[in-house]
Amino acid sequence: MLSSVKENPLYEIVNPESIAFFGASNNVSAMGTTQLNSLRALGFEGSVYPVHPRETEVQGMKAYKSVEELPEIPDLAVLVLPTKIVCETMEACGKKGIKHAIVVSGGFKESSEDGVNLEKRLIEIANRYGMIFIGPNCLGVANPHHKLNTTFLRYEGKPGFIGMASQSGSFVTQVFQYLSQYGLGFSTAFSVGNEATVDIVDCMRYLGSCPNTRVIALYVEGIRRGGEFIETARAIIPEKPIVAYYVGGSETGRKAGFSHTGAMAGPDRLYDGVFRQSGVIRADSVTEMFDYCWVLGNLPKPGGRRVVIQTHSGGPGAEAADICGRIGLELPGFSDETTSKLSAFIPHTGSIQNPVDITFSKNWMDFFSGIPKALLEEENMDILLMYFLLPSEMVEQSMALMGMSKEKVEIESKKFIKMCCDAISGILKEHNKPLVGFTYRSFRDHFIQELLSRGVPIFPGPERAARAIKALVRYYELREEIVKAGGQGIKG
Amino acid sequence: MLSSVKENPLYEIVNPESIAFFGASNNVSAMGTTQLNSLRALGFEGSVYPVHPRETEVQGMKAYKSVEELPEIPDLAVLVLPTKIVCETMEACGKKGIKHAIVVSGGFKESSEDGVNLEKRLIEIANRYGMIFIGPNCLGVANPHHKLNTTFLRYEGKPGFIGMASQSGSFVTQVFQYLSQYGLGFSTAFSVGNEATVDIVDCMRYLGSCPNTRVIALYVEGIRRGGEFIETARAIIPEKPIVAYYVGGSETGRKAGFSHTGAMAGPDRLYDGVFRQSGVIRADSVTEMFDYCWVLGNLPKPGGRRVVIQTHSGGPGAEAADICGRIGLELPGFSDETTSKLSAFIPHTGSIQNPVDITFSKNWMDFFSGIPKALLEEENMDILLMYFLLPSEMVEQSMALMGMSKEKVEIESKKFIKMCCDAISGILKEHNKPLVGFTYRSFRDHFIQELLSRGVPIFPGPERAARAIKALVRYYELREEIVKAGGQGIKG
Repeated sequence: MLSSVKENPLYEIVNPESIAFFGASNNVSAMGTTQLNSLRALGFEGSVYPVHPRETEVQGMKAYKSVEELPEIPDLAVLVLPTKIVCETMEACGKKGIKHAIVVSGGFKESSEDGVNLEKRLIEIANRYGMIFIGPNCLGVANPHHKLNTTFLRYEGKPGFIGMASQSGSFVTQVFQYLSQYGLGFSTAFSVGNEATVDIVDCMRYLGSCPNTRVIALYVEGIRRGGEFIETARAIIPEKPIVAYYVGGSETGRKAGFSHTGAMAGPDRLYDGVFRQSGVIRADSVTEMFDYCWVLGNLPKPGGRRVVIQTHSGGPGAEAADICGRIGLELPGFSDETTSKLSAFIPHTGSIQNPVDITFSKNWMDFFSGIPKALLEEENMDILLMYFLLPSEMVEQSMALMGMSKEKVEIESKKFIKMCCDAISGILKEHNKPLVGFTYRSFRDHFIQELLSRGVPIFPGPERAARAIKALVRYYELREEIVKAGGQGIKG
Repeated sequence: MLSSVKENPLYEIVNPESIAFFGASNNVSAMGTTQLNSLRALGFEGSVYPVHPRETEVQGMKAYKSVEELPEIPDLAVLVLPTKIVCETMEACGKKGIKHAIVVSGGFKESSEDGVNLEKRLIEIANRYGMIFIGPNCLGVANPHHKLNTTFLRYEGKPGFIGMASQSGSFVTQVFQYLSQYGLGFSTAFSVGNEATVDIVDCMRYLGSCPNTRVIALYVEGIRRGGEFIETARAIIPEKPIVAYYVGGSETGRKAGFSHTGAMAGPDRLYDGVFRQSGVIRADSVTEMFDYCWVLGNLPKPGGRRVVIQTHSGGPGAEAADICGRIGLELPGFSDETTSKLSAFIPHTGSIQNPVDITFSKNWMDFFSGIPKALLEEENMDILLMYFLLPSEMVEQSMALMGMSKEKVEIESKKFIKMCCDAISGILKEHNKPLVGFTYRSFRDHFIQELLSRGVPIFPGPERAARAIKALVRYYELREEIVKAGGQGIKG
């Protein structure tokens, strides 16, 4: 294991200062052009050298006829080339002294017997020049903290804390918008492709020591180095959680994964055992994988699995209680002290049981200050699950009906929503217990956006919220087992 | 059973021409005021008569001191009054000759022993005057087709095809925005409250014969008339599907439901049996309930459970295959004829297996025309599951790089997306097979919005899509059982 991310062999692939780019041209529909453009769109600050045999300019940038002509030895080469010229280009890069590459091109091991041989030759060339490379048959790397994105879609949203290693390129690139709508983003995401010289375990090691990464997500079609996977995961778990979605869990998924990247998947039970032994949380879908990352990366350690539900609507409260119960979370009752604190806030139509239901309460602020404070102070609870509904329109309407001008309403309603959200963040800072939200509002809603920006995970409906809470609880249980068994951490 | 919706006893509650409104005032934070305002915001076209003992005007409308003073006998009275004056007001409404009411006020059976007695008195008054009423302790009705909404949130989106009867008011009102983001909406939604004279079974009967309702959703905390429930459902199932979420399925849900409306829930297995015998599809959450409604109300009958997955990205295809397999959907192979048709479209990096993966295809239009056409023509398939990714930004970027002006790009990219979506709708019209989509894009995306507006259900991720497909298949299996056993339909 490594003591610093800068000593990791992948460091320069993820944080290059200069890039030689092969395969971009003035043909706008070429894959390489799209990838070069998404790199530039994110504002990559290092040097980029397009290499093209015929053009003097590519996408408005000075182009070089060959890698020999480059004014320096770039940290990284990105190859988006036809299969048949990949090996010779790697050879030229090796001769130039380039030590790191991303080989996007497909047509290797995943496609045919010839491809298998071609991939062997590619590895042999890399070894000869002491190069390591990601791919072939991949989309490369997105490290928004370094303004690096070699994939074909533009990065959306802010740099985040999810480190990802994926055996599918789609899940590092086609989810940019998906994550950003929740205020999430990648720390660094690897599309590992055929894993010729860099596999998912190498990426886990990098992400384990990467300071921007708070949680690691894995999309797995097949693990090749089982022993190293377990060992690496167990070293990481004491410091950060790992969540994996394994697509070969079913016969149909296994077949599809094989046809996708040629990964040899194993029986579901085998993988279940590997994940469990590794302390890795298993997700049943990609959505769930990112849900788990969200709570694991954002929330403090819960003391246990005792959930208190706070709502102002009976139905959503009952639904949340039903779902929590069904998946094995506990809903504790309250101490006399808490009951007495709550009775000041709860009108007769509400309930001082768990779920705490304050239907028809007139003072909206209690919901965001006095009540959650009383609940978080309760000794018999570990996690707060809150239902959020505060339609901006409703606040605005009330204010308009009070005779405020349109301009005033706009300002005042935003102020009011900010005040509610600040109240919640303030209370969370005082009490080191996790809060998870759920709602049936759209994520465009101003109130929901304000909460998200304060790091409160909010799910559409209680089902995803409850399952995410369970993953949060589970991680700390697994971590304890591993620490007790002598797991040392990646820096140990 | 009834032959026409107009003969249903609830018809005038759902389609009133005139309403007496009790409890709205010039106090903007009063519940009644909010409810009156959401009624007016939807543009209710009948007469509305606010009744207030002291005001001459309420929210700018002429107010009446008492119900006696009203210039006509309104079809419906809505009562949002303090508990203690509900009975006397109902009495006055009865004397006036009003036959239908919605009693929003709480403080009855759900709250105390006194409340139980008060509710008995309320029923006795209604019986004496031949009145029926919804509630007490409810939010009333939303029938956007009639511009009626008595709930406290404003209706959002278009009138839809989901008929709902709910033992929680939240799920008829706090989901307006949730549904509208998917292009969905209610035909008519009932919040039944304490079900004093109108229960969930009565609402099912109404919705069964309501021509705007294509599918019925039930939020259930406890069924009181089991026999009638089964009988009514079995009469409806041959004509339209029913989906139910039962919150008392777990101990915690049962308790929470009881504290919410005082419903006596039964053991999960009992309800499972009732639903199965009724032909009702059971959902595990409210989200899932609406997902099932979406596909059941929008899609034609599938021939069976054989799903073909179409994708241009290996990962999402593999994930969809894994999830379909895990929940018992079949992924058939293709006939030689289909394989030969497909080979014209699929480049060497893609796959002519199921999932059909056309990674790196250059001609986007094939994905929306030739390929789905070939797949829908395959005899061995029943349902098409498609992965959708067509970022407007990407289309726009490509066009901008081709040298188009900004204005031109805006027009042309919209045209292009429209063309893709029209191609898909055209093919669907020719082949009477269901198409379900999934995506990781935001639902704000222009392309996703265009598809939604053409009635294509699209889910965030394949998990919800696959489960919804399974519900679609299951409904037709249950329907066949019921029809064989001699179910007659609501009009029989």
